[in-house]
Amino acid sequence: MDVKEEAMKMHAEWAGKLEVKSRVKIRDSHDLSIAYTPGVAQPCLAIQKDPSLSYKLTRRWNTVAVITDGTAILGLGDIGPEAGMPVMEGKCVLFKEFANIDAVPLCLKTKDVDELVRTIYLLSGSFGGINLEDISAPRCFEVERRLKELCDIPVFHDDQHGTAIIVGAALMNALKVVGKKMGSVRCVINGAGSAGIAIAKHVMRLGVRNVILCDRFGIICEGMAGLNPAHEQMSRLTNPEHRQGSLADALSGADVFIGVSAPGVLKPEMIQSMAESPIVFPMANPVPEIMPEEALKAGAAVVGTGRSDFPNQINNVLAFPGIFRGALDVRASDINDEMKTAASYAIAGIITDKELAADCILPKAFDSRIVPAVAKAVAEAAVRSGAAAPQA
Amino acid sequence: MDVKEEAMKMHAEWAGKLEVKSRVKIRDSHDLSIAYTPGVAQPCLAIQKDPSLSYKLTRRWNTVAVITDGTAILGLGDIGPEAGMPVMEGKCVLFKEFANIDAVPLCLKTKDVDELVRTIYLLSGSFGGINLEDISAPRCFEVERRLKELCDIPVFHDDQHGTAIIVGAALMNALKVVGKKMGSVRCVINGAGSAGIAIAKHVMRLGVRNVILCDRFGIICEGMAGLNPAHEQMSRLTNPEHRQGSLADALSGADVFIGVSAPGVLKPEMIQSMAESPIVFPMANPVPEIMPEEALKAGAAVVGTGRSDFPNQINNVLAFPGIFRGALDVRASDINDEMKTAASYAIAGIITDKELAADCILPKAFDSRIVPAVAKAVAEAAVRSGAAAPQA
Repeated sequence: MDVKEEAMKMHAEWAGKLEVKSRVKIRDSHDLSIAYTPGVAQPCLAIQKDPSLSYKLTRRWNTVAVITDGTAILGLGDIGPEAGMPVMEGKCVLFKEFANIDAVPLCLKTKDVDELVRTIYLLSGSFGGINLEDISAPRCFEVERRLKELCDIPVFHDDQHGTAIIVGAALMNALKVVGKKMGSVRCVINGAGSAGIAIAKHVMRLGVRNVILCDRFGIICEGMAGLNPAHEQMSRLTNPEHRQGSLADALSGADVFIGVSAPGVLKPEMIQSMAESPIVFPMANPVPEIMPEEALKAGAAVVGTGRSDFPNQINNVLAFPGIFRGALDVRASDINDEMKTAASYAIAGIITDKELAADCILPKAFDSRIVPAVAKAVAEAAVRSGAAAPQA
Repeated sequence: MDVKEEAMKMHAEWAGKLEVKSRVKIRDSHDLSIAYTPGVAQPCLAIQKDPSLSYKLTRRWNTVAVITDGTAILGLGDIGPEAGMPVMEGKCVLFKEFANIDAVPLCLKTKDVDELVRTIYLLSGSFGGINLEDISAPRCFEVERRLKELCDIPVFHDDQHGTAIIVGAALMNALKVVGKKMGSVRCVINGAGSAGIAIAKHVMRLGVRNVILCDRFGIICEGMAGLNPAHEQMSRLTNPEHRQGSLADALSGADVFIGVSAPGVLKPEMIQSMAESPIVFPMANPVPEIMPEEALKAGAAVVGTGRSDFPNQINNVLAFPGIFRGALDVRASDINDEMKTAASYAIAGIITDKELAADCILPKAFDSRIVPAVAKAVAEAAVRSGAAAPQA
């Protein structure tokens, strides 16, 4: 049975990958009077007096909402909220299995930015954090930005920042392998959607000075006509040499290729035109921009993809469980740039000098060192950056 | 330790009465590929093609949202959404423990009717049913009415209908005890808020022709000045003899008193003025309109309260678990009047002729016969009334 068939069969058998579990037994009317009326009035009144007690007397301290509008589910595009639920349930399973976080999947029946923002804000008092998922660009930028302003709990769009954090970690270790420095490489990112833009911003935070963003029409360059607002903003932050032209033009002499674009767009001759020891991350899923064996044959020194059947899988599950675990552990009010940077360093740091190799720049998804290390680094960064109070 | 102290201690110890449980083990990348990417794309595409498959391939078939705006939490009034969470978690615990339903507590940060309706509608694709809870009157009427029109899943405001269903069951059996008929009794309901109005409508559906609704200002009578819209509507449906005056006037010669009002407002002399073998349900909580021993001393033939420490507890937990279980079991699109009526009959029918007595008109909360009987009756009524398709 192939993966597709097995997944259908198992989803029908599971009839839901999540359930709600009561942490309280209700055996008699005494139990009822403590967990429910009349006793429950006491914790209610205590929270009314001091809202921060919602983190002590309810499950809020460990609860995250996983929210989508169904517009960018996997590579499937806009399939609507109901059809997005299997992915959201799956994401919640990963939150629980990897980081013991209680995650609630919510698929909203609107694509309107104002409505998404308002609805999610109105829900935010019930959760300790919000993971935005599979909301299409450019709406996802505004939804996240406005929610981060409105909410006093962490809001994190995993498709943007989760991916960027892992790419950042992969890049750190790949540069060690080839003996280059962040500050001196030219890094070409193909695909200027939400993931590509987040990757660009994140690798710049990690020290890359020369980032070139490409989209279907080629290199994004300051002053170009017809750029959308997100591309226009990025044109001012990237491409300091004002290069123009195609992806091939961008890659000539470049050190790093990062693809969040489409199958097959990276040609062997483009890799051959890159600088010495090129780093190539073709992450289109399930079919990458170039197959790893072909990339290596064309001279790539380090290759990472989104797939689990090749070395160096750039997989979001390396980041989001530990990031939310850390943010929840210190009751952070945000997941800010310092925390994202700390997550990249923590993931990269899991690979010891002894382990580090061209085919081992990232830990595997099931490496039990990841979540504790990421959580600790993120929690410390939260306190350091003022997103959380110092812990007792 | 008293109930208050114990409840605070236990809520701090529990740190949340609910958690999310994964029904799927994720041990290796094969597991990941089936429960998450890439396999999960198959159930997503199947649901996109046929949205009803969301009831087969996700947990929707067993999942209910328990939603409040925090405005009428227990007897505590408007304490806000965060402070309402301990009650919502408790309600979800009861859903799970009594009927194995996965219930998700959501406290919304708005009191605006339009916003509540829109927000809950936008969430409705993620759930198999919606239990509205502790939303203050008169807003709760419009919120429920509009949601029932908008949503294709059951929407049920438990504070109204749950209470009414149990009172209806209690009244059926109490009338048997005293040998009277629904169609010939006069029934006085004191407290014309959301519960009182729902009780009035429900007992009329069960056959009571002469209902008098009273509020703080006395009897509600057609043509009175200054009635709010809900009272105005009820003035036309109740009080066929156009009585006027106080609660005492209403009770003179009446057969039934139902109180959802305030401690101590029912005086012994009022009971003495009622018809032979009066039925008295003083349900104010925790202190009833009259204490049961005092009501019996004044001549009440049957007494029921909201309290677990007296016989005949009129407790919502007798109704909502079985009602939602039945509605979910047949994937009902609504919880309509026929289903509510069926629930009252099912609850009353649990008490056998042998058990029936003045101090035994209702089953106790932990009677294991209740949920299966209510669920079956509600499911059958759903099919009969067209709220659900005939079951294969």
